[in-house]
Amino acid sequence: MFSTVLIANRGEIALRVARTCREMGIRTVAVYSTADRDSAVVHFADEAVHIGPPAARASYLHIPSVVEAALRTGAEAIHPGYGFLSEDPDFAEVCEANGLTFVGPPAQVMERLGDKAMARRLMAEAGLPVLPGSTGAVTGPAEAREVAEKVGYPVILKAVAGGGGRGMAVVRDGDRLAHAFQETRAHARAVFGDDRLYLERYVDDARHIEVQVLCDRHGNAIHLGERDCSVQRRHQKLIEESPAPNLPPGLRDRICAAAVRGALAVGYTGAGTFEFVLAPDGAFHLMEVNCRLQVEHPVTEMVTGIDLVREQLLVAAGRHLAFRQEDVVFRGAAVEARVNAEDPAREFVPTPGQLTEFTPPGGQFVRVDTHARTGWTVGPDYDSLLAKTIAWAPDRERAIARLDRALAEFRIDGPGVHTTTEYLRHTLADHRYRAGRHTTGLVAEMAAEAATV
Amino acid sequence: MFSTVLIANRGEIALRVARTCREMGIRTVAVYSTADRDSAVVHFADEAVHIGPPAARASYLHIPSVVEAALRTGAEAIHPGYGFLSEDPDFAEVCEANGLTFVGPPAQVMERLGDKAMARRLMAEAGLPVLPGSTGAVTGPAEAREVAEKVGYPVILKAVAGGGGRGMAVVRDGDRLAHAFQETRAHARAVFGDDRLYLERYVDDARHIEVQVLCDRHGNAIHLGERDCSVQRRHQKLIEESPAPNLPPGLRDRICAAAVRGALAVGYTGAGTFEFVLAPDGAFHLMEVNCRLQVEHPVTEMVTGIDLVREQLLVAAGRHLAFRQEDVVFRGAAVEARVNAEDPAREFVPTPGQLTEFTPPGGQFVRVDTHARTGWTVGPDYDSLLAKTIAWAPDRERAIARLDRALAEFRIDGPGVHTTTEYLRHTLADHRYRAGRHTTGLVAEMAAEAATV
Repeated sequence: MFSTVLIANRGEIALRVARTCREMGIRTVAVYSTADRDSAVVHFADEAVHIGPPAARASYLHIPSVVEAALRTGAEAIHPGYGFLSEDPDFAEVCEANGLTFVGPPAQVMERLGDKAMARRLMAEAGLPVLPGSTGAVTGPAEAREVAEKVGYPVILKAVAGGGGRGMAVVRDGDRLAHAFQETRAHARAVFGDDRLYLERYVDDARHIEVQVLCDRHGNAIHLGERDCSVQRRHQKLIEESPAPNLPPGLRDRICAAAVRGALAVGYTGAGTFEFVLAPDGAFHLMEVNCRLQVEHPVTEMVTGIDLVREQLLVAAGRHLAFRQEDVVFRGAAVEARVNAEDPAREFVPTPGQLTEFTPPGGQFVRVDTHARTGWTVGPDYDSLLAKTIAWAPDRERAIARLDRALAEFRIDGPGVHTTTEYLRHTLADHRYRAGRHTTGLVAEMAAEAATV
Repeated sequence: MFSTVLIANRGEIALRVARTCREMGIRTVAVYSTADRDSAVVHFADEAVHIGPPAARASYLHIPSVVEAALRTGAEAIHPGYGFLSEDPDFAEVCEANGLTFVGPPAQVMERLGDKAMARRLMAEAGLPVLPGSTGAVTGPAEAREVAEKVGYPVILKAVAGGGGRGMAVVRDGDRLAHAFQETRAHARAVFGDDRLYLERYVDDARHIEVQVLCDRHGNAIHLGERDCSVQRRHQKLIEESPAPNLPPGLRDRICAAAVRGALAVGYTGAGTFEFVLAPDGAFHLMEVNCRLQVEHPVTEMVTGIDLVREQLLVAAGRHLAFRQEDVVFRGAAVEARVNAEDPAREFVPTPGQLTEFTPPGGQFVRVDTHARTGWTVGPDYDSLLAKTIAWAPDRERAIARLDRALAEFRIDGPGVHTTTEYLRHTLADHRYRAGRHTTGLVAEMAAEAATV
């Protein structure tokens, strides 16, 4: 096993990774931008290296600074967390070229799956259901319209280099396609530096179901069950859970088996997520594959008892998976809610500021992953995630009640700081959510109902 | 189910009980002394009633104030937590006389088990192994010496009304017996208002193994496994875990079966704990029965997935147990450490003061039960427990590593405030503890070794 691991990230996920390293007896190196010099992981890690100013491009995304920090501190491996460099094949290649193990799948696997149009093709070849759409990137609005007429409206335009819910637009009729195409292309160019778009059929009233896979470097691949992440605003997840409610066991098995088949087909290694769109009629289609730990991985950990970061590190060190599919025991239900420093009343605008009080919930079967504490300042430089709150119980109804209890317990205060806590509780109380009959349209439906009241 | 429950306690356990009530949709009433007016449970409960000054006798132990608060707020049941009134049969009787359900066993069961000498007799009659000793209370030093000669030294003198590790003395030879008797009797009179003592054989190099039982009011009794609580200073537990390490399965089954047999014999209801002393040769003997939730109950919750407070409330409401013995699935290992505001370098003297920082650990498979927060003042009026920290993992070794990680993460600061955190980490690292070959003598052994260095 590695003796030193550098964590190329910040916030709650950097602390999350450092915790597992510490538990495994691995020395940790944190990196931090000027804005994060007093952050939780900087205090907790065995060593911390300043890598640049707040702007991510000059610090957390700056490959030479990160690699140099690793070499200088004697790190043998780099864990990239999620976001930032976690799905950058160039970074993985530079790591390997410098004798550093990148904790993630091989660079070429990431490259092929990161190109969402190519991933569609590869997965279709592996026998996974994909939605009808363009074979690869479309050349322009004209070709987009041609494909759209063939597959039928509504369609969704997506950036080839996209991910994390950004760079996509739903189009419901042909007249709007050209305009949406230009807008999405401009957005993709600005955000991803790659303006290629592809297109596929859009499924209304769908659910977002994703499967956690775990693969070693010796051809063994298993799944750790599914997660339902249908509660989203602007394609960003707010509430996630495992298992997915009201999923017939046969269907669940087919979705999970499809993910494992896809992972084996591309030689995937480490922890990865296969995201599917599930239509009301039970048809499911692959959306994309995420080559990293997901924000919502704790719900899987709570129902399986498996520490995913530990498994990532073991796989990266060349170990065989220590368990087979039939050894994985799923117990109860877990639900996660993301508490963000945002104002739900003003379209979830981030509300940075200093926390004069931050007292997280605790107690039975509640997990909080956070880097915040009383006195900590939520800066304007990074995302607004304050704390992931996860509750486990023997069944979904009790897990929801427990999560609501935990959210009610939060005491967060600071001048100008708003949080999503009450909004999340409101969502947990929604009758569609309670019944497990909600779709990705839930947030919009709730907003429309609030507007009519 | 009850619609309103009053919680007759304070600190972490009051919050613990309130959390489960909230999860079950039960309205909660907290009671508080003047010293606790800004405490966590006062903020969290649906209603809070001031019941008197800091002195426990005038508030948390003052039955009329507690009962009046319950009647005034429409509470239907009272949960007593641990300590204070939790094992007081008079309190249970007053509750029932006022139409309030006492969440615990019937008053007469508590009365018979609270008399430790009588409990010994009852349990021996039920076929449970008890250590050779006096049949009931001994009349004085002369009779004590007579019994001691018969059972053989060392012996332990115990207060009939004792519990919680107080009011006991180990005597290794007859010359010291008379003096120890006078001292222990004076202590028992002062602490329990009852100076009766009994005596039994003392087992050296023993382990403290206790069994969690759960019984409904319809004759169903099960156990939720055992806990090892051998790490103690002055008979007070510091570290507890489940399952007990290195316990042969056959022996474990016999101890657990004995506890269930004992519970059925006395008509026990609710959650209770049978404490055993386990000798190096594998012989086990009952020490006492505790008619309440234990401080260390979370380790049992983490390995079974069962919320013990919920079960207590369901039983108190007259429900049948919802599961049978064979439905209880034990998973992995959990270890709890008690972080106290004490100075281990000065014989664990309490160190009250204001907390200028209190940031608890979090993350994967860690549970913290605490009422403390940044800005909170640890007063001199009550016990010095700051936070129970519990870690779960698939096996004991990893649970210990995880608990150590969690303890390392704690950030507690305040003028004059010391904590046991580093002392606990030191104990977790001890080779005897690691190997699971420690006894109740561990703390003394470590102190002796430190003194010789």
